[in-house]
Amino acid sequence: MALIVHKYGGTSMGSTERIRNVARRVAKWARAGHQMVVVPSAMSGETNRLLALAKELAPPKTTREYFRELDMLAATGEQASSALLAIALQAEGMAAVSYAGWQVPIRTDDAYTKARVDSIDDARVRADLAAGRVVIITGFQGVDAQGNITTLGRGGSDTSAVAVAAALKAAECLIYTDVDGVYTTDPRIVPEARRLTSVSFEEMLEMASLGSKVLQIRSVEFAGKYQVPLRVLSSFTPWDIDLGDEARSGTLITFEEDEHMEKAIVSGIAFNRDEAKISVLGVPDTPGIAYRILGAVADANVEVDMIIQNISHHGSADFSFTVNRGDYARTVDLLNSKVLPTLGATEVAGDTRICKVSIVGIGMRSHVGVASKMFRTLSEEGINIQMISTSEIKTSVVIDEKYMELAVRALHRAFDLDQPGA
Amino acid sequence: MALIVHKYGGTSMGSTERIRNVARRVAKWARAGHQMVVVPSAMSGETNRLLALAKELAPPKTTREYFRELDMLAATGEQASSALLAIALQAEGMAAVSYAGWQVPIRTDDAYTKARVDSIDDARVRADLAAGRVVIITGFQGVDAQGNITTLGRGGSDTSAVAVAAALKAAECLIYTDVDGVYTTDPRIVPEARRLTSVSFEEMLEMASLGSKVLQIRSVEFAGKYQVPLRVLSSFTPWDIDLGDEARSGTLITFEEDEHMEKAIVSGIAFNRDEAKISVLGVPDTPGIAYRILGAVADANVEVDMIIQNISHHGSADFSFTVNRGDYARTVDLLNSKVLPTLGATEVAGDTRICKVSIVGIGMRSHVGVASKMFRTLSEEGINIQMISTSEIKTSVVIDEKYMELAVRALHRAFDLDQPGA
Repeated sequence: MALIVHKYGGTSMGSTERIRNVARRVAKWARAGHQMVVVPSAMSGETNRLLALAKELAPPKTTREYFRELDMLAATGEQASSALLAIALQAEGMAAVSYAGWQVPIRTDDAYTKARVDSIDDARVRADLAAGRVVIITGFQGVDAQGNITTLGRGGSDTSAVAVAAALKAAECLIYTDVDGVYTTDPRIVPEARRLTSVSFEEMLEMASLGSKVLQIRSVEFAGKYQVPLRVLSSFTPWDIDLGDEARSGTLITFEEDEHMEKAIVSGIAFNRDEAKISVLGVPDTPGIAYRILGAVADANVEVDMIIQNISHHGSADFSFTVNRGDYARTVDLLNSKVLPTLGATEVAGDTRICKVSIVGIGMRSHVGVASKMFRTLSEEGINIQMISTSEIKTSVVIDEKYMELAVRALHRAFDLDQPGA
Repeated sequence: MALIVHKYGGTSMGSTERIRNVARRVAKWARAGHQMVVVPSAMSGETNRLLALAKELAPPKTTREYFRELDMLAATGEQASSALLAIALQAEGMAAVSYAGWQVPIRTDDAYTKARVDSIDDARVRADLAAGRVVIITGFQGVDAQGNITTLGRGGSDTSAVAVAAALKAAECLIYTDVDGVYTTDPRIVPEARRLTSVSFEEMLEMASLGSKVLQIRSVEFAGKYQVPLRVLSSFTPWDIDLGDEARSGTLITFEEDEHMEKAIVSGIAFNRDEAKISVLGVPDTPGIAYRILGAVADANVEVDMIIQNISHHGSADFSFTVNRGDYARTVDLLNSKVLPTLGATEVAGDTRICKVSIVGIGMRSHVGVASKMFRTLSEEGINIQMISTSEIKTSVVIDEKYMELAVRALHRAFDLDQPGA
């Protein structure tokens, strides 16, 4: 007897048969007495289909006006799937109504294709819930102050669901997806990887930022900020399983630390091979070199992840950072043509065949020696560490890409992640 | 140097290549100095695709809530095509912006799937036009007072275009379609049929109501009410033909009678074989019988077209009317079960193998003998007339369906419609 938000991804909404199953699952929850709000993605393939049409027609130079129209176009996918889900719920005998982002409204800034949610008006939705209706709200989209449609970027439906749950102070936001929860690491690399029954927001945030694809990182930030309990669970369990079993399945992402039932020091191993390393060598060690290097990179709209600066013996420094592999070539070109000549540095070196491996766990806060155990484990496997970066609940290293699987498996074992309740 | 509205049907928007051609045509008009507003339909097939998905999921009993969701669903087709056209125009170097019905807003009543336009706010569109932008407005849809999306019914994009042209006091509304104008009759039946260079609204209204499919009848009513000059022309002429030639092509539907350049008595022959005839025979001739028969029919949501009552010799009357063929069987059942017993009539007879043939022309107002010439022509061909109905600018007859082509050809010849300037 609580207010519950369900979110269904594009695969779960991928056909009329699947939409019917979603409707049956939601109806089960509503009939158990819950007030139900559902946030669906577009039917799988639909957003790509629409964007492919746009690409065929796109102007040579993309502008703000172009991105506005892309949002106008892409938002139709969720509007259609939401209306279809409302119809399917009506066919199950439920009262149901669907709203596009602007109808709620979900107000956002005007950064087309990657807008951020500013506020959500809950009046209309609450009135429908009070009248016994299931309310369906389009994922992925909102409306700016000028009444233009905006979208929240790829995976934005997760953020929509969490934002809606926060605005309605929902008891829980259930993210139905094609995996059955959050794992200690990718089971395709470590068969012993275990599903976590719960994980803290901070850990989830680090794992998402480190490349774990279960949830869009912004949705996790949002859930943490507004203390929305999130649960990741599978949409492929039969819709008619016991509601109690379903409600306890998957992984709960919780903001209450004492609810963090598994007291592991390290909760998971994340990895990412989408990055490349760039080093500027022999930089004269004067104030402002970081700004002069990274300022030029940022001006070219390249996002930088890890940043390391080492002071060398002779008054010059080596400066290294990682960027997305897709940005590697133009960043190196930029540094060689624009930055190197004015900086007085000797050389720009780089490597695309790297990967980043991270251990994540809120237990690291109160346990010393976690990082050194990680370094020792890698050393015992003969893996050379190229860069290190740390935060309160995470330690990341950059290593040669070819050692990635080996490193992940060794660390998973070293931190006893294959042991339940470790 | 005028404000011009273009409307493009689904076939004209049917692929990215066709959308690019529409963009080039619109850009040509804009570069000639016109302020351009464009109303596109959904890409051909899209509305049917969406409604087929809804049908797979539809509840057994359709409700108002279901029709609301159908509109939510179907409206996405025009939103997508409008955004794509804006993108294509941007690629042609034009500033362009698209708006969904609710963004203008186009306000309608809340009769989902067949809403009527109440008002259109022109402020936002005018500001864009003043700023040199091409404005694209989704056809087919609007928003009701509660902020729900509504659609205007099949062919509703014509009505959208005319309503927008009326609100903006456009110099002309050009309806680009897959025929190159309005003909004296269907050229598939009479090869000598001629394209009319102009036709009056009243004639067009009669022709549309009589089954000529060039324009949605409501759009013609709207154009007449707000005196919007309408032009029907082909979207399949190359986009780069001379603008002056294009602007004079097709058929102008005009509200100024003295602009009606062709002084023909009869402008066209319309026909329709979608109707069936029902007769209630031997009705006691007392006040209120028309109401007692047609009231029951209207209560069953059956629309009646022609209505004829003849007084017979012995104090009883024969009462005949036509309905859509799809409503024939249940109307006859209704009359036999509910009306006949209480009315004291002797019999219900009917015929589905009929057709309606009409001559239309504002010249009939000032010319006597037009109807009798029609009857004589049919008589000379041995065609028996079953029902007759007349208005100021139209005479319709019901005849046996098998004589339809013969009747249309004979009348086309008799009224010299194959002669230019007849």
